[in-house]
Amino acid sequence: MSLKFIENNTKVAYLLFLALFSIVICTSMSTAVPVLNALKIFKVIGQLKTLKRTGWVQNDISLPESVADHMYRMSMLSFFITDPSINRDKLMKICLCHDLAEAIVGDITPYDGVSKEEKKKLEEDALRKIVSDIGHAEIADEILSLWLEYENGTSKEAEIAKNLDKFEMIIQADEYEQAQGKRLDRFFESTKDSFTHPEVLEWNNALRNDRDTRLGNL
Amino acid sequence: MSLKFIENNTKVAYLLFLALFSIVICTSMSTAVPVLNALKIFKVIGQLKTLKRTGWVQNDISLPESVADHMYRMSMLSFFITDPSINRDKLMKICLCHDLAEAIVGDITPYDGVSKEEKKKLEEDALRKIVSDIGHAEIADEILSLWLEYENGTSKEAEIAKNLDKFEMIIQADEYEQAQGKRLDRFFESTKDSFTHPEVLEWNNALRNDRDTRLGNL
Repeated sequence: MSLKFIENNTKVAYLLFLALFSIVICTSMSTAVPVLNALKIFKVIGQLKTLKRTGWVQNDISLPESVADHMYRMSMLSFFITDPSINRDKLMKICLCHDLAEAIVGDITPYDGVSKEEKKKLEEDALRKIVSDIGHAEIADEILSLWLEYENGTSKEAEIAKNLDKFEMIIQADEYEQAQGKRLDRFFESTKDSFTHPEVLEWNNALRNDRDTRLGNL
Repeated sequence: MSLKFIENNTKVAYLLFLALFSIVICTSMSTAVPVLNALKIFKVIGQLKTLKRTGWVQNDISLPESVADHMYRMSMLSFFITDPSINRDKLMKICLCHDLAEAIVGDITPYDGVSKEEKKKLEEDALRKIVSDIGHAEIADEILSLWLEYENGTSKEAEIAKNLDKFEMIIQADEYEQAQGKRLDRFFESTKDSFTHPEVLEWNNALRNDRDTRLGNL
């Protein structure tokens, strides 16, 4: 084997190594979210911390919870769903994302004079704007899919998330009633037929039973 | 085949069916969280919505965020970690659970005169009390494991969650500085060496760079 042959082979190996190294670096870099996009979306998400839930504001609740507070407990409720037929991690992610559009359009309630269709359109447009600003197709698709799945109720996880959304609201209503001496019947009446999943249905029945006892309705 | 034989076999089949049915019902019932325990823990979790983060209270921030608000955005930050070597769903669950003990002991900061060891013990005792009240060993173990993993930093997910905890705090500090005309240097100084994961490190550098530009420190 001549010295020239070894030298050439070393060069080839070196070039191959460089090419491979560049591919690895570029691939790993291209998967990260562009940093300015990341900071922008983090600020959008942060708006959910200062956005107060409209239902409480309309009922003169003092220091009402934020939309982020609501989604936090709702996500935690997922831990307590033991139904083995569902993907609980997906349920948790749906809970975390389902009100994300409110960071842009606010918390529109059935009492705000906005039709259901109009609300849906406003929220979907806002959500599509939020995810288009992520600058990362895979993450954008994931969040959009979770959100649409919830909106359209196209999976068992989405259906349970809808149960948890309503149930989290009535636990909160019950807590405000006790802490602030209020009557918040509207929230209990509007959700009385909302529960379909046996576990949430059982929690709902027990909560309403406790409330009825407290209010002397039994 | 005599009538007696058929009759006996029918009886046996009927008893077997009853036994099997009872096992199925009992098993399915035993997997659910007992309803009174569920309602109790949901109220404990709810306390994180009204618990204000001590760091902001000590710095006279108006209407400071809740511990639940903080954990909400922290959990959402998990969506933006693209590191393929981690279990992102686990990271999300660690973020959701890591401050759960504060529902009992409050948000103890390094400025409260409580030693690190004492704080750790207070929080671990509180967390163990919370999970022991769940009445469901599997869920209790899961939440305790996620919490201990974070506390002891025993996984890559726990390490990233610690990065996200600090990073979420400085985005919030930056937002309060801008919205409330404050200087919150303490939060930036105490965390300047906290970031180890390349993605969070990049977010941190960009955020500090923006802040330095805003404050004319560059």
